[in-house]
Amino acid sequence: MFDLRGIVPPLVTPFNESGEVVYSDFESNFEKYLAAGVEGYLVLGSNGESVYLEHDEKLKLIRAARKRVPESMMLLAGTGVESTAATIRLTREAADLGVDGVLVKNPFYFKSRMTSEVYLSHYTAVADASPVPVVIYNVPVFTGISMEGGLMIELARHPNIRGVKESAGNVQLISEVCWATADNDFSILAGSAPTLFPTMMAGAGGGIVALASAAPAAMVQLYKAFENRDYQAASSLQEIVAPAAVAVTATFGVPGLKAAMALEGFRSGLPRRPLLPSGVAAVAELREIFDRMNSRLVQTGVASHA
Amino acid sequence: MFDLRGIVPPLVTPFNESGEVVYSDFESNFEKYLAAGVEGYLVLGSNGESVYLEHDEKLKLIRAARKRVPESMMLLAGTGVESTAATIRLTREAADLGVDGVLVKNPFYFKSRMTSEVYLSHYTAVADASPVPVVIYNVPVFTGISMEGGLMIELARHPNIRGVKESAGNVQLISEVCWATADNDFSILAGSAPTLFPTMMAGAGGGIVALASAAPAAMVQLYKAFENRDYQAASSLQEIVAPAAVAVTATFGVPGLKAAMALEGFRSGLPRRPLLPSGVAAVAELREIFDRMNSRLVQTGVASHA
Amino acid sequence: MFDLRGIVPPLVTPFNESGEVVYSDFESNFEKYLAAGVEGYLVLGSNGESVYLEHDEKLKLIRAARKRVPESMMLLAGTGVESTAATIRLTREAADLGVDGVLVKNPFYFKSRMTSEVYLSHYTAVADASPVPVVIYNVPVFTGISMEGGLMIELARHPNIRGVKESAGNVQLISEVCWATADNDFSILAGSAPTLFPTMMAGAGGGIVALASAAPAAMVQLYKAFENRDYQAASSLQEIVAPAAVAVTATFGVPGLKAAMALEGFRSGLPRRPLLPSGVAAVAELREIFDRMNSRLVQTGVASHA
Amino acid sequence: MFDLRGIVPPLVTPFNESGEVVYSDFESNFEKYLAAGVEGYLVLGSNGESVYLEHDEKLKLIRAARKRVPESMMLLAGTGVESTAATIRLTREAADLGVDGVLVKNPFYFKSRMTSEVYLSHYTAVADASPVPVVIYNVPVFTGISMEGGLMIELARHPNIRGVKESAGNVQLISEVCWATADNDFSILAGSAPTLFPTMMAGAGGGIVALASAAPAAMVQLYKAFENRDYQAASSLQEIVAPAAVAVTATFGVPGLKAAMALEGFRSGLPRRPLLPSGVAAVAELREIFDRMNSRLVQTGVASHA
Repeated sequence: MFDLRGIVPPLVTPFNESGEVVYSDFESNFEKYLAAGVEGYLVLGSNGESVYLEHDEKLKLIRAARKRVPESMMLLAGTGVESTAATIRLTREAADLGVDGVLVKNPFYFKSRMTSEVYLSHYTAVADASPVPVVIYNVPVFTGISMEGGLMIELARHPNIRGVKESAGNVQLISEVCWATADNDFSILAGSAPTLFPTMMAGAGGGIVALASAAPAAMVQLYKAFENRDYQAASSLQEIVAPAAVAVTATFGVPGLKAAMALEGFRSGLPRRPLLPSGVAAVAELREIFDRMNSRLVQTGVASHA
Repeated sequence: MFDLRGIVPPLVTPFNESGEVVYSDFESNFEKYLAAGVEGYLVLGSNGESVYLEHDEKLKLIRAARKRVPESMMLLAGTGVESTAATIRLTREAADLGVDGVLVKNPFYFKSRMTSEVYLSHYTAVADASPVPVVIYNVPVFTGISMEGGLMIELARHPNIRGVKESAGNVQLISEVCWATADNDFSILAGSAPTLFPTMMAGAGGGIVALASAAPAAMVQLYKAFENRDYQAASSLQEIVAPAAVAVTATFGVPGLKAAMALEGFRSGLPRRPLLPSGVAAVAELREIFDRMNSRLVQTGVASHA
Repeated sequence: MFDLRGIVPPLVTPFNESGEVVYSDFESNFEKYLAAGVEGYLVLGSNGESVYLEHDEKLKLIRAARKRVPESMMLLAGTGVESTAATIRLTREAADLGVDGVLVKNPFYFKSRMTSEVYLSHYTAVADASPVPVVIYNVPVFTGISMEGGLMIELARHPNIRGVKESAGNVQLISEVCWATADNDFSILAGSAPTLFPTMMAGAGGGIVALASAAPAAMVQLYKAFENRDYQAASSLQEIVAPAAVAVTATFGVPGLKAAMALEGFRSGLPRRPLLPSGVAAVAELREIFDRMNSRLVQTGVASHA
Repeated sequence: MFDLRGIVPPLVTPFNESGEVVYSDFESNFEKYLAAGVEGYLVLGSNGESVYLEHDEKLKLIRAARKRVPESMMLLAGTGVESTAATIRLTREAADLGVDGVLVKNPFYFKSRMTSEVYLSHYTAVADASPVPVVIYNVPVFTGISMEGGLMIELARHPNIRGVKESAGNVQLISEVCWATADNDFSILAGSAPTLFPTMMAGAGGGIVALASAAPAAMVQLYKAFENRDYQAASSLQEIVAPAAVAVTATFGVPGLKAAMALEGFRSGLPRRPLLPSGVAAVAELREIFDRMNSRLVQTGVASHA
């Protein structure tokens, strides 16, 4: 039973001053997410700084996450790298370690060569080889490539390709894919919190969004309002969280997300270099944005974190 | 009473083989729109090929439209050109001819100089001088400039700037502007039919969309379903019209819109050069797309055109 | 005898505080250009703010220029507007007023429709109808469209299309077009002073560049060094003028060019709104950049202006 | 003595049908390059498909290259990956294996976070730790980021940062960096064969260009003509090689380069997946382009390969 719905925080990887992964900090954050009511977890996503991780660190993080995530809850791992063969190897290792599905970013370095034919061949090879369901990961802001709706629709026909994380906030794309895959066992998750509500209205069944790592309860509340068809409440919550959602992505990026998490009581550590931690001014601005969001959430009866 | 809501077709300008405006054809289309239940009309928009029109042709088209549009219905005219002074002159002439509001595209030729300061100064000058309400027109696909939400919010404070036509389909921008202008007398209209439903969910009060010129009844039906909070029906209608909506904009442009209108019984004429009319293959594809849309609309009980 | 070579200043249009053209200021600048040794003049180019000019202002500016430019020297006028018919009308009027050639910018508003077929048809119609040679004007920074080399090569076969002003600074494009048109009577002029020397090495026969309006003597010197195959001197002059060249285009735009011209003793007036004049800080920076350029030019024996 | 000049082929990595590196094929190509008169070699560059290589494959390729490249000739290795620490580790291992310098691509995944401050810190850390000279690698077509001239100029002050491979073909950037680093021990190499001649005129001291891997003798000839100040010959050779230079980069990418190398008698193998090999039509077009180039080279007295 692979059901891609609800709010899924993309777990960050805490590093210390020397740039080493602090696994105990990583494990310490799960309790809060559980209390907030998230539906699953993503390890090794973009916000997990997977591009800065060594292979053995990736395996250790999956093990640590699986230890903390109840069997009944979904654990996804990001296993997409540039080479098809290396993606398959990591996918199989992740499956062996007990993940329920893998999130596979499209290869993108040789941009002009990344035709639909190349992507069809790549994803088919990965999905054929993967013991667990495969979720496509479209994230143009990092890859510089926007995957086409037609390609996603074609990939959705593969029985082991079961969804897409669409991080561009493109409601037209989401609508198109949602309609065309209505008969497939295929789900769409939003990847962008600032547009979570409209993208769910357009067909997304939830979201893997950065803000869920710093403010899980608010995101869960928004999702529940949507699920209960209380669009007034959902729209109002979307408005309340929007500034924080933009701050931990477009404005301050992963360092900002980590700083915001620290403000909210998580153990998020430092980013790994070349990323530099948020400066004093950025942290002050984040504090103000989160304080404002939290006091507005309290007014609407949402605890800022469980 | 200036109320920017509902479906507003952007009127096309019919040209003959010699490139002259055929005013009688232009006037002949209004009856159908009226029957379909549109809320207002836009003359001299992008789809009206206003960039190809001479000054006297613009005035004659406004006069012809005003003659055909009942006093009780809203008539907008596109009066934004590059120079502030020329925009003000055309705005005043349009008001003298009886339009209810003007749609003012941002100047864009000197892209790097078009700062927020320049836009504030330009729109304030136009709104101060205009006898009728001003609606901002943001259309990055043609201008190459995406106006910032913050700027729109600031402009919304001017008592004579009463709305924005947002053609980028950017739900994040629409949400942001909608929330921030809730206390102003300021409306947002979608400018992109493929995303009409999600953008209305994000706060738009209707749309000035190309497809409304070729399939007004379907667009009105979609709008009414939304207004009645029948989101299931609205979403389903959005899916049905999406392929036609994309075809008459992104895929085939103004020539495609005119060809589709002809298929649907309107008198749309030829585009003006340098635009070339749609070729045989494009027309065949449009026919197929519209036939499929129309038969699906019939199944849902919507007459394709009144 | 139409010979597109050497340095051609794109004339600015001086406006007063009320936004009116000051023709006497316009006429007062020619003497200096003549003394500097330029080969020709362009009226109604982008730097002339042609997009902000009314039709009758355009005709008056052509008349004023023709009065001041000796018969033996080349006068070009920018006559490209969006519609083919309007471009042809203005082209013919300009020819009647005595210009030696017209610079025709590609129409660009309906970007996705501007196919090679459209451009071939447009330029062929204009060139067929024009009594004087036509020069293509490629300026992606303003139009958002980069014309393809293959298209230029095809257009170069028309006997009345005699050159291109290439403002993108794309040396690969310039080389390609230069080689392919070696047997045609077709010239390439650079449109970007910061890359004038390398583009001349790649095949351009001179330049219509903003800096030539503020520092004509330096640009003429650079061109002469290149023509005399003194590449050491040309390269050195290019280095000296580069900061000023960037300042009056990318950094400060037309308002910056006008401010720099005023510092150099020209009567350039104000920009027309919506353009705002350069602020105090920008003018101070321009002064510093031009002072530094002038003192370095003096060291190399070039008078900063004749 | 680290002297970054002349023509340096970026070595491709031959893979077999199973996707394994064929080291014997890799080693078999050096003889021809030596005969053609290249000045050095690059292993693990973009054309070497380094993004698809495992860590141990990288080390084996460096060892194989060092075995074949005479001590007197320069061997560079691409060691830039996303993380600073991993870049330093690979750089040190490469130095231990005897490379003369390392080419370090800028990290680029978190685009909006890649500020000048981040790059200064990253490159300084790498250059401080590297036992061999560091060469910056700017390749916007793959990274989506164009490094600023000002940043390069600042990095050039570090005694162990000794040059840049500039693959954008941006002559303005090259001129600017060249002038500003005239007093440093810092060189610029072109990364784009279609613009090699103009970029050398703008200050580049040679090139690491894809075409040098398939047609080394022609590229060496072009470089020598430039060095001997025979600009007529250099320009003419540039024209002759341009179509092939474009074909093995922009048009057909790495698969096209490998196909062209096979046509020219090299053992280039297949690309690694997800890259797909060039199809029959592409190979036929490459054959035609290279045949035409070779016959024109023969006319000018250049053997197509030694």
